Amino acid sequence: MEMELWYTEKQTLDHGITTKIRRTLHHEKTEFQTLDVIETVQFGNMLVLDGMVMTTDVDEFVYHEMITHVAMNTHPNPEHVLVVGGGDGGAIREILKYPSVKTATLAEIDGKVIEASKTYFPKIAGALDDPRVKIEVVDGIKHVEENKGKYDVILVDSTEPVGPAVGLFQKPFYQSIFEALKEDGIMVAQTESPWFNRDLIRRVFKDISSLFPITRLYTASIPTYPSGLWSFTIGSKKYDPMEVDETRFHQVDTRYYHPRMHKALFQLPVFVQELITVERK
Amino acid sequence: MEMELWYTEKQTLDHGITTKIRRTLHHEKTEFQTLDVIETVQFGNMLVLDGMVMTTDVDEFVYHEMITHVAMNTHPNPEHVLVVGGGDGGAIREILKYPSVKTATLAEIDGKVIEASKTYFPKIAGALDDPRVKIEVVDGIKHVEENKGKYDVILVDSTEPVGPAVGLFQKPFYQSIFEALKEDGIMVAQTESPWFNRDLIRRVFKDISSLFPITRLYTASIPTYPSGLWSFTIGSKKYDPMEVDETRFHQVDTRYYHPRMHKALFQLPVFVQELITVERK
Repeated sequence: MEMELWYTEKQTLDHGITTKIRRTLHHEKTEFQTLDVIETVQFGNMLVLDGMVMTTDVDEFVYHEMITHVAMNTHPNPEHVLVVGGGDGGAIREILKYPSVKTATLAEIDGKVIEASKTYFPKIAGALDDPRVKIEVVDGIKHVEENKGKYDVILVDSTEPVGPAVGLFQKPFYQSIFEALKEDGIMVAQTESPWFNRDLIRRVFKDISSLFPITRLYTASIPTYPSGLWSFTIGSKKYDPMEVDETRFHQVDTRYYHPRMHKALFQLPVFVQELITVERK
Repeated sequence: MEMELWYTEKQTLDHGITTKIRRTLHHEKTEFQTLDVIETVQFGNMLVLDGMVMTTDVDEFVYHEMITHVAMNTHPNPEHVLVVGGGDGGAIREILKYPSVKTATLAEIDGKVIEASKTYFPKIAGALDDPRVKIEVVDGIKHVEENKGKYDVILVDSTEPVGPAVGLFQKPFYQSIFEALKEDGIMVAQTESPWFNRDLIRRVFKDISSLFPITRLYTASIPTYPSGLWSFTIGSKKYDPMEVDETRFHQVDTRYYHPRMHKALFQLPVFVQELITVERK
């Protein structure tokens, strides 16, 4: 009998996942967080930051497609796009599928995440070498404050709202994003699980609603994330993803998102819709 | 420090969930399977058959609404409805929300599941006392074989395709269901996870397609089920759930399903759609 190794993540105080691993490929304490790469049997290589799964070979396509394409297909001509966080490069890879894109900027606070992703996740991070990509190892908050009116689309591809990412779930950051966007810009933030993070979703949706005229939420199935259901919140200055003309959608090569799904995404389960239904006075 | 108890379920050979429990409320070996009820911290009471989560207080509404309402709202006048399996009574509870229903028959092979559900899941099983409900403790295969042309809607609310439920995933059973339905009848079967059970989904969809003129698949988010994403397969003799007139939908009191979601459900992720896209000759 060979020894079995299992990685167990407590996703809440009382619930988690456990997954069989072959070996640990990488472990380090960076300036900002603990960074592990493990080789799992079910999901291939898995990136773990501060004990939380960030991405895996097998299901990464869902998160990276879904944080990207809804906004990119809502904006009619995204040329300059920013990813805050997202050091694995997956969102950048999806952004580059649009011929309109002239620059895709990555503002990642932890350069070690970029390095580890290039080594252990070449299919995710490979696009970081594209000449349209600008990599800035910098606090995303600082970057958006210093780049007013510059971007068409901003994606907030953060870790969980603990440690280095706390500020990425706060209203002052969304205010800075609003200012970093052009007058018809659009933002998307990953906003955790509708099952386990209801208060956070309510608060973020309210904060973004107070800044942007159009605010929308949608979800996607990500098996290695808490509860398996993940939410994304859109703030848009001009274009409504529910009203966009589908005939001009760019046909992207994808495994989860497709243009006919775009508007269907906003028909949320009742218990999710209730989180974001603001009482009218 | 108090001792911590955790229930861990290997949902595949290499992956599972782990959840903190307060205590075991019930354990027995029935004629057909092992039956456990545990009190968890995150999901309330949890019913476990042969070591697999069947339902929990917190997320049961998703499964029970989603196995029921898509078919019930597609059929214009469901009067006689059968649930095969489903001894917890949750699907029956949802069926009874339609005023058109005259009889809701439960064909559950294991009477002990019904008893345990009445004791430990009163909100799920409570509707089993309704006068429209007929409970038959019987093999569902036998029941459908002996009731030809009787039902408007049949829901296959089975356990996983091991042990007593193996026959409920086989083509001869779907043939019997076809015959047990009226000439405009419609069936739905729970068909496992699109992440972990792809071969099963492909095979069942093909089998049901070979019998019913209209076959559709949709999914729902169920955090305590493997991968958190669950599929349901429809076989329909006459009514297409994608073409149904939404203005005649019955407005049911629900927490997940709602009528505006009905057609959006069929805009599946690309990787799920690919499972059921039959190659044309």
